[in-house]
Amino acid sequence: MNTFGRIFRVSVFGESHGEAIGAVIDGVPAGIAICEDDFSADIDRRRSGAKGTTPRREADIPEILSGVYEGHTTGAPLAVIFRNGNTRSGDYSLFKAMPRPGHTDRVADIKWNGYNDPRGGGHFSGRLTLPVVAAGVVAKKILSGISVTCSLVEVGGLPYSSDSLEIKSIIDEAARDGDSLGGVAECIVDGLPAGLGEPFFDSVESLVAHSIFAVPGVRGIEFGDGFASARMKGSEHNDVFGEDGLPATNGAGGVNGGITNGAQLRFRVAFKPTASIRKAQRTLNFAEGMMDELEVPGRHDVCFALRAPVVVEAMTAIVLADLVAVG
Amino acid sequence: MNTFGRIFRVSVFGESHGEAIGAVIDGVPAGIAICEDDFSADIDRRRSGAKGTTPRREADIPEILSGVYEGHTTGAPLAVIFRNGNTRSGDYSLFKAMPRPGHTDRVADIKWNGYNDPRGGGHFSGRLTLPVVAAGVVAKKILSGISVTCSLVEVGGLPYSSDSLEIKSIIDEAARDGDSLGGVAECIVDGLPAGLGEPFFDSVESLVAHSIFAVPGVRGIEFGDGFASARMKGSEHNDVFGEDGLPATNGAGGVNGGITNGAQLRFRVAFKPTASIRKAQRTLNFAEGMMDELEVPGRHDVCFALRAPVVVEAMTAIVLADLVAVG
Amino acid sequence: MNTFGRIFRVSVFGESHGEAIGAVIDGVPAGIAICEDDFSADIDRRRSGAKGTTPRREADIPEILSGVYEGHTTGAPLAVIFRNGNTRSGDYSLFKAMPRPGHTDRVADIKWNGYNDPRGGGHFSGRLTLPVVAAGVVAKKILSGISVTCSLVEVGGLPYSSDSLEIKSIIDEAARDGDSLGGVAECIVDGLPAGLGEPFFDSVESLVAHSIFAVPGVRGIEFGDGFASARMKGSEHNDVFGEDGLPATNGAGGVNGGITNGAQLRFRVAFKPTASIRKAQRTLNFAEGMMDELEVPGRHDVCFALRAPVVVEAMTAIVLADLVAVG
Amino acid sequence: MNTFGRIFRVSVFGESHGEAIGAVIDGVPAGIAICEDDFSADIDRRRSGAKGTTPRREADIPEILSGVYEGHTTGAPLAVIFRNGNTRSGDYSLFKAMPRPGHTDRVADIKWNGYNDPRGGGHFSGRLTLPVVAAGVVAKKILSGISVTCSLVEVGGLPYSSDSLEIKSIIDEAARDGDSLGGVAECIVDGLPAGLGEPFFDSVESLVAHSIFAVPGVRGIEFGDGFASARMKGSEHNDVFGEDGLPATNGAGGVNGGITNGAQLRFRVAFKPTASIRKAQRTLNFAEGMMDELEVPGRHDVCFALRAPVVVEAMTAIVLADLVAVG
Repeated sequence: MNTFGRIFRVSVFGESHGEAIGAVIDGVPAGIAICEDDFSADIDRRRSGAKGTTPRREADIPEILSGVYEGHTTGAPLAVIFRNGNTRSGDYSLFKAMPRPGHTDRVADIKWNGYNDPRGGGHFSGRLTLPVVAAGVVAKKILSGISVTCSLVEVGGLPYSSDSLEIKSIIDEAARDGDSLGGVAECIVDGLPAGLGEPFFDSVESLVAHSIFAVPGVRGIEFGDGFASARMKGSEHNDVFGEDGLPATNGAGGVNGGITNGAQLRFRVAFKPTASIRKAQRTLNFAEGMMDELEVPGRHDVCFALRAPVVVEAMTAIVLADLVAVG
Repeated sequence: MNTFGRIFRVSVFGESHGEAIGAVIDGVPAGIAICEDDFSADIDRRRSGAKGTTPRREADIPEILSGVYEGHTTGAPLAVIFRNGNTRSGDYSLFKAMPRPGHTDRVADIKWNGYNDPRGGGHFSGRLTLPVVAAGVVAKKILSGISVTCSLVEVGGLPYSSDSLEIKSIIDEAARDGDSLGGVAECIVDGLPAGLGEPFFDSVESLVAHSIFAVPGVRGIEFGDGFASARMKGSEHNDVFGEDGLPATNGAGGVNGGITNGAQLRFRVAFKPTASIRKAQRTLNFAEGMMDELEVPGRHDVCFALRAPVVVEAMTAIVLADLVAVG
Repeated sequence: MNTFGRIFRVSVFGESHGEAIGAVIDGVPAGIAICEDDFSADIDRRRSGAKGTTPRREADIPEILSGVYEGHTTGAPLAVIFRNGNTRSGDYSLFKAMPRPGHTDRVADIKWNGYNDPRGGGHFSGRLTLPVVAAGVVAKKILSGISVTCSLVEVGGLPYSSDSLEIKSIIDEAARDGDSLGGVAECIVDGLPAGLGEPFFDSVESLVAHSIFAVPGVRGIEFGDGFASARMKGSEHNDVFGEDGLPATNGAGGVNGGITNGAQLRFRVAFKPTASIRKAQRTLNFAEGMMDELEVPGRHDVCFALRAPVVVEAMTAIVLADLVAVG
Repeated sequence: MNTFGRIFRVSVFGESHGEAIGAVIDGVPAGIAICEDDFSADIDRRRSGAKGTTPRREADIPEILSGVYEGHTTGAPLAVIFRNGNTRSGDYSLFKAMPRPGHTDRVADIKWNGYNDPRGGGHFSGRLTLPVVAAGVVAKKILSGISVTCSLVEVGGLPYSSDSLEIKSIIDEAARDGDSLGGVAECIVDGLPAGLGEPFFDSVESLVAHSIFAVPGVRGIEFGDGFASARMKGSEHNDVFGEDGLPATNGAGGVNGGITNGAQLRFRVAFKPTASIRKAQRTLNFAEGMMDELEVPGRHDVCFALRAPVVVEAMTAIVLADLVAVG
């Protein structure tokens, strides 16, 4: 469903072109200083505008409906919404007939018998990551002494750096071709105490992976040495303990048996290329019952992975705030 | 915690060298024919014995305590236990002083203030996957018309085939060196209806990944094109629809936006090399407060990934039985 | 926490004098016709205005933020909010120093370290039952063929009828004295299929009672013969089966062993008298550390039970919608 | 389902005449001293034998399968089972044809399509309260400084005292008539800190009532003044604060707005008379399709309420252990 967490719990709702999207955040400790400005930095990081991101611009002003009084959290659920403003719903009428390859048009139709809101991907839209980012801001405030940092490490198969000319050039080329690119992000958490998480079903990796695969467009996740560990020997992959009692290396990514071990939590996430592309695709026209050519109109990210690291951070912070609450 | 699922729910309990391990399976529909023999095939697949697996042999006889009457499930919770027989607990006394690198000895000690059962990894032992396999057998019976098949595709970096001489040779070599190997498994599900799963927090990938990372030793999971998709263009990765209304390719691995799309569910899991190795490791002796050499004694798998595919199948079947129950 | 249900799930948020209160309703089937007008009848029943209810009047206009498209539910979470308008927060400043006897001022202060929103009871306000009523409207639409009807049967110890002169007179008298009255409501559900509910922890009575005790001011609940059954013999209380295969009497209130038996679901709920009274109470002034006299100012119901039946209906419908979804 | 709790979680399984019944208790803190003898006192209180209870005698020896090592809890789930020994299943074959009035025979048949275990009530049997009592023993150990005490206050409409001749006489009379009696129990908890519980759906009353209605045969629950409060004025029912900052009276039963207020938690539970009676009942013979006379054979309690107080204590302790864990 649309709720996650045991004690610190986040529910999201909304559609891309509906009235508003939002999150209800339950289990927030009382007494945390918070105001609407606190959301700006992370919301800005998620917002489009950079090269390779959609020209759709939203004000993205958080409106706190509950749970904050005189500048502090009250202990009651914090509800925050974002009005949807800059919508051009006309763009989307086509996709009932010709569902976009790689997109959710078709599965939404099937799952909800045609009653789904088709505008902008409806409830499946990446726009729903905005309330997730807002919940992440609240979660980060709970995690005092713990820092969660995610950054892109790869775009279109190249090592990512925001000022790399090569990166700019492959983004320009994909944009020119009406095509799209994927990327890989790495998330690092410092300051986590050892002993969080549970064996089996609430392992730290289970909870983090659960939340990360809720982000649209994720195709894989790996912790520490990840898939490479499958090609290593035990003597290469094991983290021996150093004199400080902590792992001297970090092939495990900070978790053993589902429990944090005191080292950095470290994982990588693979994002697929944006599904909505202008480039012609030969696909089924369900209305006509015949193959047809689709050039997806509208405003889309060439590489939505560029906007994803702050969403990964938010999800991770949400999981950790819950783990810390459970203890 | 040790429970997973919304309607079809599995709880596991037990320690490697304790009295018994087991599972309680709730939400089982009434009227499914089941007997203790039905568990044999999957339990045999998990059992050690093959080259590269531990010489510890357990009878692994399931004892059904409840939920079955006159050969059919009753609708009430099905509890199944396995007595622990062939234990040599003396082997494990050392690991309180010198926690095994890559193992759970140290985190268990921290999490549970030294009260954890240290024998054979206690509750963190891979032996706990036995009741998971048993629950998987029940889940598979619920999934009529749906087949879940997992197999190894890689061991020690080589393509896996059970009769490959090269594979036998690297296993022998690792065994000789007192070292260990990892592997990669691929799971494929046929016959899934489109429309299962939920957007966001209960996406199919979220639930599957949650369950898979509960399996000891998993380092990564990827769906469809997985990490490779991050290096593809949208035009390469998107699955266009064919004339039958289904995806003509399967880069998505059978899921769009968290919802099954009618294609095969397909994902790969990375298993690290076995942590317990005979080969000497220089690590901290916590009791002495100085670095020391550890050669892990006892009987261990050279490559526990060899026994893992049936566990992946079980977890997947458990998730799918729940998804089907929720509808 | 503030969420209830397994498949049909309701989360509430908000404070009496905050920006808005609302509910997020997850698990709503797609394709249910719904518009904002559909909420009017039940919201009117809950609204103040009748003799014995508070003169605070709110417009109580539901604003649907998500989950509805072109007049039908989409399958995605339905979020509905109500702006708080007619608030006179000045009235409540006193209660930090002198918490109202029988009210939540003191426990809220303790639980949330003084950070709770004290205005109008904050998150503990009976006003939070408004989004519950809204969620109940949605639940009732799901329960086709099932009718949920709750009505007052007792006020101030007298049999209740809305046109009883005696009732009017005791309400007038209590109002004149600055005092308050309690009441008893009875809820009846027709059309329930047999077989809903689970043995033990998800018995129908467990779920209904759980939800009903979430309503502020409830002191007791009893099913069927209720407390009177404790004074009956088995031969008097047992419901024999009639020729139609249904219970011929209904001492059980429609449930055996936690499972609906095909008869009417029938239970009664006791509501305490309103805690906020004008009549002087001798109680502790926590600020001064001495006993003092408190006359609670502000606008309050003489008997909030008068407004409660529709809330009981809503909670019951929410539980039943979930039971029907689970099957 | 058969699981209850958020952090301290109890799952029960088993059937009256099956192999074994048991409980899995998750979220038990590590390091609590426990052995099988610790269960004796509460198990004895639940056991039959006294006047008015069934002559079926079970050894009721707890067998701890996991979660305890060297006399202390390990932090991992504690599984405890009880073998079913003294069963006379032949007694129950009749009830498929003529379901006992007031019993679960009929609803179990409907819910589980005839696959339910009919022997001794199967999974619906009061015998399932034995693992609940065992879980309660564990919960009580967690609740240091908090005492949970439940006792009968009424049997067959008379004030209960174990040595009352009048009580003995009505029990004898009911036994002679092949009839049965109900009762009322009162539970008192001392030493609870203020501030436990949540507004709305996880109010203390909600959680306690949820658990208590899981006990077979409960018909009502009321807190503090309970149903009587509906007939009181606010000035009579409100608990003013005394000089110590605590409620000077306890009409609320220790809870305001769902949150403990530092006073005794106090509630009463109504138990119906035993459903299985020897006295003839005219009811439907479903097999013959005609009304018939049923005299329920077998060994039954005249008044199972006599054995219920320790079960109420156990459920209450389970809820409180979870509330304390959540904080």
